[in-house]
Amino acid sequence: MDEATIRQQLADLSGWTLDGGMLRKTYTFKNFVAAMAWVTHVAFLAEAHGHHPDIDIRYNRVTLALVTHDAGNMVTHKDIDLARAIEQIGA
Amino acid sequence: MDEATIRQQLADLSGWTLDGGMLRKTYTFKNFVAAMAWVTHVAFLAEAHGHHPDIDIRYNRVTLALVTHDAGNMVTHKDIDLARAIEQIGA
Repeated sequence: MDEATIRQQLADLSGWTLDGGMLRKTYTFKNFVAAMAWVTHVAFLAEAHGHHPDIDIRYNRVTLALVTHDAGNMVTHKDIDLARAIEQIGA
Repeated sequence: MDEATIRQQLADLSGWTLDGGMLRKTYTFKNFVAAMAWVTHVAFLAEAHGHHPDIDIRYNRVTLALVTHDAGNMVTHKDIDLARAIEQIGA
């Protein structure tokens, strides 16, 4: 997916940015337990999609980063689709 | 805790290193689900200790980093104690 297409896809994905060749977003929760509950939900989605974000947990903040390693570390529809599914959870 | 004391404490904590002023270890699992199950166990321990490691999940690899923010970002007994509790889980 070229950068223009990615940016078009990101237009309605609030808070997601293209950063260092990956799609990224940081989510903030009221505390660590709330963050972990949400990460667990993300993990089930990721496993169902067969596509796994990098997940960095810093107490009540969680940063996700998405790229398709199987496609030579390019952003693909797999990344966009998973980002959309994650947004449906609500944070 | 001074660096010599930390290194003494790490002697029987296999795989834990002092890196950039934090205690770190990377654990490897058979897949993402196994990694997440273990992370969930770590999360319960962390909450019980009132002390929360940085947790970086990369598919089947998980890196933990421990430091005591309340003690001016020094390594303290809180970090050593949590590392020991995490080692008891088994990976």
